[in-house]
Amino acid sequence: MKKGQDTRDLLQTHARRLFWSKGYSNVSVREVAKAAGVDVALIARYFGSKLGLFEATLDTLKKINPDDFPTADSLVDVFVELFSNAPKEGTEASPISMILLNANDSDVGTIVARIQYEYWQSGLEKIIGSKSQAALFFAAMMGFSVGQKILHLDGIAELGSDEYRAQLRHMLTTAIASPDF
Amino acid sequence: MKKGQDTRDLLQTHARRLFWSKGYSNVSVREVAKAAGVDVALIARYFGSKLGLFEATLDTLKKINPDDFPTADSLVDVFVELFSNAPKEGTEASPISMILLNANDSDVGTIVARIQYEYWQSGLEKIIGSKSQAALFFAAMMGFSVGQKILHLDGIAELGSDEYRAQLRHMLTTAIASPDF
Repeated sequence: MKKGQDTRDLLQTHARRLFWSKGYSNVSVREVAKAAGVDVALIARYFGSKLGLFEATLDTLKKINPDDFPTADSLVDVFVELFSNAPKEGTEASPISMILLNANDSDVGTIVARIQYEYWQSGLEKIIGSKSQAALFFAAMMGFSVGQKILHLDGIAELGSDEYRAQLRHMLTTAIASPDF
Repeated sequence: MKKGQDTRDLLQTHARRLFWSKGYSNVSVREVAKAAGVDVALIARYFGSKLGLFEATLDTLKKINPDDFPTADSLVDVFVELFSNAPKEGTEASPISMILLNANDSDVGTIVARIQYEYWQSGLEKIIGSKSQAALFFAAMMGFSVGQKILHLDGIAELGSDEYRAQLRHMLTTAIASPDF
């Protein structure tokens, strides 16, 4: 079964890159199979359907574990570093681009919103101790990503620079310091 | 020419609703023509192409005029009201949903980023007096929209409520109060 597992992994890897960077509706199973260099029929065999293939890419996401974050401030530190060390290209297949490009999709949007809550938002709520502050924290991250990676706003400093870190830190810190409703 | 103008307006209205709420690549010219109740060939006649039809929907956007905003604080007031009075549905064809769903598109993304700068960002920069603060202001708006309309985060208060206004006001105000790089 070694060969089958390799093919499955290869399909999952290319599906993740394509679905997460282009959006579910903009990618065909044929495109994934071609990128992986395998016959398109194997997607049905290993994943059942295009939807099954997309769901398999979500298996690779890491949950936010409250035990790893003793304080809300430690969240800010970790996310500022994560963002600062991300690849430069705007279309890398990051969890954030996965959400931006798929959360509004008519086929997979509901799945993405559920995964976002289960994997990240519920953890953020536990660590921060407020649903409202946790929502603004995630919103600030998403907004910063849109401004940087999608709109390429002049006013967002160069990725990874001290100014970049300070901008992101400011937005995340003030989200956590917001009034708690 | 009255009839031709009516048909053109009808196509533009339906194209705006569909392109802005579903994304350029998820909408076919056939779908727009069907929604408008006219023959699909009329899109080529009036707009040249699918791209021309999309560009025509951008003609309806309003520029941010620095003369209307004597202070940066007045920006916050106006945008909090705009958001609070928006329709409830997640997929209404707002300028914000237009950006979220099209700014990453391979065919129209560059046009959307240019329009965003010309119509809004350059005005925000003039009013706020800082490229960095203006970028964080727009990022905060986008992030709040993603959290509210796309991810439907529990922690974002009910649209238009006092808590909702306070949350959005907090994020926009702190963006403007960020260190200026």
